[in-house]
Amino acid sequence: MFETAELGRELSKEVFKEREPSLRQALLEQQFRLREADFPVIVVFAGVDGAGKGETVKLLNEWMDPRYIETRAFDTPSDATLERPLFWRYWAKLPPRGRLGLYLSTWYSQPLLGRVYGELDDSQFNKALDDIQDFERTLADDGALILKFWLHLGREAQEARFKSLEADPLTEWRVSEKDWKHWRMYDSFVGAAERLITRTSVVHAPWHIVEGQDHHYRSVRIGELLLEAITERLDARQHRRSAAAPARESQGPEDSSDAVSIEVPGRLTVLSRLDMDRALKRAEYKRQLKEQQARLNTLHRQARQRGVTTVMAFEGWDAAGKGGAIRRLAAAMDIRYVRIVPIAAPTDEEKAHPYLWRFWRHLPRAGRVLIFDRSWYGRVLVERVEGFASEREWKRAYAEINAFEAQLVEHGTVLLKFWLHITPEEQLRRFEERAATPHKRWKLTDEDWRNRERWDEYALAVHDMVERTSTHIAPWILVEANSKRYARVKVITSVCEALEAALARGDKARP
Amino acid sequence: MFETAELGRELSKEVFKEREPSLRQALLEQQFRLREADFPVIVVFAGVDGAGKGETVKLLNEWMDPRYIETRAFDTPSDATLERPLFWRYWAKLPPRGRLGLYLSTWYSQPLLGRVYGELDDSQFNKALDDIQDFERTLADDGALILKFWLHLGREAQEARFKSLEADPLTEWRVSEKDWKHWRMYDSFVGAAERLITRTSVVHAPWHIVEGQDHHYRSVRIGELLLEAITERLDARQHRRSAAAPARESQGPEDSSDAVSIEVPGRLTVLSRLDMDRALKRAEYKRQLKEQQARLNTLHRQARQRGVTTVMAFEGWDAAGKGGAIRRLAAAMDIRYVRIVPIAAPTDEEKAHPYLWRFWRHLPRAGRVLIFDRSWYGRVLVERVEGFASEREWKRAYAEINAFEAQLVEHGTVLLKFWLHITPEEQLRRFEERAATPHKRWKLTDEDWRNRERWDEYALAVHDMVERTSTHIAPWILVEANSKRYARVKVITSVCEALEAALARGDKARP
Repeated sequence: MFETAELGRELSKEVFKEREPSLRQALLEQQFRLREADFPVIVVFAGVDGAGKGETVKLLNEWMDPRYIETRAFDTPSDATLERPLFWRYWAKLPPRGRLGLYLSTWYSQPLLGRVYGELDDSQFNKALDDIQDFERTLADDGALILKFWLHLGREAQEARFKSLEADPLTEWRVSEKDWKHWRMYDSFVGAAERLITRTSVVHAPWHIVEGQDHHYRSVRIGELLLEAITERLDARQHRRSAAAPARESQGPEDSSDAVSIEVPGRLTVLSRLDMDRALKRAEYKRQLKEQQARLNTLHRQARQRGVTTVMAFEGWDAAGKGGAIRRLAAAMDIRYVRIVPIAAPTDEEKAHPYLWRFWRHLPRAGRVLIFDRSWYGRVLVERVEGFASEREWKRAYAEINAFEAQLVEHGTVLLKFWLHITPEEQLRRFEERAATPHKRWKLTDEDWRNRERWDEYALAVHDMVERTSTHIAPWILVEANSKRYARVKVITSVCEALEAALARGDKARP
Repeated sequence: MFETAELGRELSKEVFKEREPSLRQALLEQQFRLREADFPVIVVFAGVDGAGKGETVKLLNEWMDPRYIETRAFDTPSDATLERPLFWRYWAKLPPRGRLGLYLSTWYSQPLLGRVYGELDDSQFNKALDDIQDFERTLADDGALILKFWLHLGREAQEARFKSLEADPLTEWRVSEKDWKHWRMYDSFVGAAERLITRTSVVHAPWHIVEGQDHHYRSVRIGELLLEAITERLDARQHRRSAAAPARESQGPEDSSDAVSIEVPGRLTVLSRLDMDRALKRAEYKRQLKEQQARLNTLHRQARQRGVTTVMAFEGWDAAGKGGAIRRLAAAMDIRYVRIVPIAAPTDEEKAHPYLWRFWRHLPRAGRVLIFDRSWYGRVLVERVEGFASEREWKRAYAEINAFEAQLVEHGTVLLKFWLHITPEEQLRRFEERAATPHKRWKLTDEDWRNRERWDEYALAVHDMVERTSTHIAPWILVEANSKRYARVKVITSVCEALEAALARGDKARP
């Protein structure tokens, strides 16, 4: 695979000097255009040590305006990083739309070195690469332009490079014992790299193998590839925008969720099977609530000591009692370690990033509890039904969400997802009660009434959501909530059971 | 001081039951009103162990809607936290406008325990309290409603409390060996607390001493104080808003910066004294640039190894060459550890916090370099001249900025502030050149021409800025930038000198 990158390609200093100014100018111009665009550019640098990754990133910062470039190298992770799922740090450092992100020591470093050192076997390595694919696909689907450069040097060329660096007192420090150690492992390094490149080179995030020996050649080559990709994407966007107005209408049926929604009769969903008569008498409720809260309190303390993190998502009909259930739940825990995040309209910083970014950013350190009041499922519920997300967007969200949740669970997080279900009749009763009670009136908005009119569409969206995202590792808990008492006890009991199971399994935070 | 909080105040269960529902309802209503308000509420809980801080915070979360409360307890700081200035973690967790933040183990914990353990002497303790005062004043000036509760227990009451907790197997775990250790130090603890309270109880952030022994009394008392303060503030705001329209005009002269600005002739400022003929010949520039970049590279690497952090602010006239100077500077460093943050309009998350929040949030870990292209000085430059900030706001900004910079420097950060100065004639020449060169035209906006018309006002603002914020610990570096070459070399040389001095002093990051 790398033979073509060991041909000794060169560019003379003269040719370089001739081509550099116009390339530089063109890059600067496209970077300026990019600032107004609705997508980020993510450039990954990887490859053989000494092949010029760092120099290239430095040069690109000189050629373009570094103020609008995010250059990131991911060091050894801190404690706070290790206490979160693997991709958390990468999500946290994504460039916003309109910016260029240049990444060194990326999400590829750990799997590659892990494989070379034998810490990962073949199937673990493949799994790591698949997770990377999921991550990059999510970014690409969101619009990111992703380019990946593998800078290559042959074994002899690498040796020569290290020796020449060592010969100069000014650059001697750049060659470490570790570099030589890796050089001696060259073959297994390159073998793992081959697998890595073949498995993760996809249309939306291709690898470009660039010969790294001659810095003139390498710089111009990478500059041109980057320029071409950015220009092409910007032109395509511009073209689409100018063509957008007439095209929109013909897109209508494909883009509208209505067209596909109501084929299943509204009532024949997974929700129809719930026994909505479940209830609890007041005295029994008081007894059970107290009992389960005490149980939760003990488990919560143990989980905290063991560093077991809990993340919960609450969804449900308007007036289903999410707030009340969350309050009883939080009351049983140490509020200092609990964070409740109500999900409303995204902020402008959130809008400048992929959809899931606003949830990733809240993920807590080990031993904490994070409760989302409404969650990432908004994408396939309200955004689907109200048409805020296109059909393409909400349909691919199922896979994105499953990948996100899998990462949480793999990291050892206890994940719970609640759907609080009430019947339309019960909802109407609660709406009317709210309207009639002065101090509850603020809870009821026009939007609640509007949502109610689309009950069947929402029911279908819930049905699809459960069908596609109730996985073995992260099942939905459907809560019969016509009785608030019953629902509250069921929620707390479910959390207890999940914590008990996790503690019995011996879950704990990584290192 | 605490005698009045050892009177054994109690509220019977009956009275509590009678008052609780209406208090709770009223708190919930005010919390709902608060969500639309333009200020946050910050509530600090401190006091004697066992006096019910945690319980009170828990109860307030039950009484109100916990989804709109940020409850924070500041644990032992992580590495990443220790590598930043002391108040960084508190800035990071400030509630946005419209929210309630309840804080346990706050900025008061460390100084108080430090004094009790003898790690701080009297003057260090006073200094720590003064820093807290600066912090709270900045928040209050920005509109925050700040309340501080000291929950008190007498020595015997504390002992009794611990014993009763220990007697119950369900609560036994809550009393630690450390609690008893602190109890034996009761007198010195209370002595330090007295000083703390007297020194930091100010109108905009008062302490309320609350007797903690009886939980009915304590809960109702704190609930009522909180309710009263929030209601009063909301009413005052509402009142002011409804009265605002007619009042604005008469406020004109006081609120407008124009009225005070042009008393000093524009040219007689600190800038007039600069020798604007300084320049460098091309060959000399090339030589010096290369030499200083090499020098910087070495120092930068040493600083990185030693964990010395550098923060730079670049200000200057439009077209003064900030971008070019920053590019040459960044080119001499390891771009992976350098972040350049261009300051443009604030995002909505930034607008929901005090002015300096958007700068605090970027402060890097140890050994990194952070470059602001335009900075917190926008407050006293463009915001002053254009009237985006009221006179009150920009006038108090000098003190806020000095306090901010003092914290950076005390933490060991190398702080540099550059003003790139050009003459109006040179600016005109550059504007015209930009207008005439196709690929530079985008750099020139209508705003540049508008700003130019207000040259004298800006010059005065710069003069005042230098006068008030060029401190011994963080002096302004005025750069004669009519010659870009001269300016670039001076900037890099200045960074070298600052790093050399810091390395010679043996600066390094904390633990």
